[in-house]
Amino acid sequence: MTSLDLSLYLVADQEFCRPGGIERIVAAAIDGGASMVQLRGTRTNLRQFLTDALALRALTRRAGIPLIINDHIDIALAAGADGVHVGQADMPAPFARQLLGKDKIIGLSVTCTEDISERDLVLVDYVGLGPVFPTRSKTDAAPALGLQQFAILRSRIALPVVAIGGINLSNAGSVMAAGADGVAVVSAICSAPNPRQATMSLRQCIEEAWQ
Amino acid sequence: MTSLDLSLYLVADQEFCRPGGIERIVAAAIDGGASMVQLRGTRTNLRQFLTDALALRALTRRAGIPLIINDHIDIALAAGADGVHVGQADMPAPFARQLLGKDKIIGLSVTCTEDISERDLVLVDYVGLGPVFPTRSKTDAAPALGLQQFAILRSRIALPVVAIGGINLSNAGSVMAAGADGVAVVSAICSAPNPRQATMSLRQCIEEAWQ
Repeated sequence: MTSLDLSLYLVADQEFCRPGGIERIVAAAIDGGASMVQLRGTRTNLRQFLTDALALRALTRRAGIPLIINDHIDIALAAGADGVHVGQADMPAPFARQLLGKDKIIGLSVTCTEDISERDLVLVDYVGLGPVFPTRSKTDAAPALGLQQFAILRSRIALPVVAIGGINLSNAGSVMAAGADGVAVVSAICSAPNPRQATMSLRQCIEEAWQ
Repeated sequence: MTSLDLSLYLVADQEFCRPGGIERIVAAAIDGGASMVQLRGTRTNLRQFLTDALALRALTRRAGIPLIINDHIDIALAAGADGVHVGQADMPAPFARQLLGKDKIIGLSVTCTEDISERDLVLVDYVGLGPVFPTRSKTDAAPALGLQQFAILRSRIALPVVAIGGINLSNAGSVMAAGADGVAVVSAICSAPNPRQATMSLRQCIEEAWQ
């Protein structure tokens, strides 16, 4: 249940998914081959965030893939999620590990060299590295790394790395070639006319990169 | 340590306190007679929120008064706070109680008749009822109740009630007379030229209302 297959990591953003559509989109993405799901949400209504987390918990458990909660460890605990993803301005890794225990998954965002801290990396399970490309779906994102800098930073991280930021069908292959263990996408699936088909196409692109 | 003296409840708002001044203001308010402290904070930097919580934890522990964390149960757990305060759009009381255990303090915001739910009230320790008067320090506050409606709602709640919203030296006595067990203030202390003196004056006003 808590295996770590980062290959096609859906970030289901509450504000980015059409209202009421988050369950439908996540179900379609799971059906299309998403390997993990993260719920990312508004910070102004934690009750709705928990409601969505519980709904996605049911979907991901049925599919046997992990559900990760962005930022909010209390929501992860309340919903029985498989883990959390924290940024550099969120709960520090030592506190997150203490609250979650040793078996839960913790992911950490890295956006630059300065974020690569051994003290934190020994406590987490994977790194989200990016933004690789400019992104519209995160308003406070750091500057885009570009593929070359992504590859340099990736080589300095011993953990599994999922690439994030502006990734879609046109560049997923090059991101995998630059050393990513998987790609995290928001709009490439959430905003697609057919989220299941979009996920299948990304899945195929990733599997071709492995060959 | 976790006794519940709501009489003069300081809400130390990170965004309302001058930058870097939150510890100084809280220390002065404790010195002036604050009976409880709540840390209320930005939702965009949970790491800074935790840092402030740990600092206030040291101050309140020394003074032997409770520290309450607004909204974020994970921050409360990580900082070893005495409890949390949740609103109607935050973690529901049953989940909050489960995460915190039976000994921690849980406060619940009530802004109208519809918020008075027995299912929730049996799980919490006190109610924050308001806003009594219009307030500048909470941008998403509900409409002000006024003293008369405050008194009506207060009479329907069996738990201790702290009044909140626009309370200052000029109206604290009338709020106590309307049935409050205490007053929660933000700007009346945080924005005062002399937070210790402002707290002492409010303390005196409350004690006069008791006579």
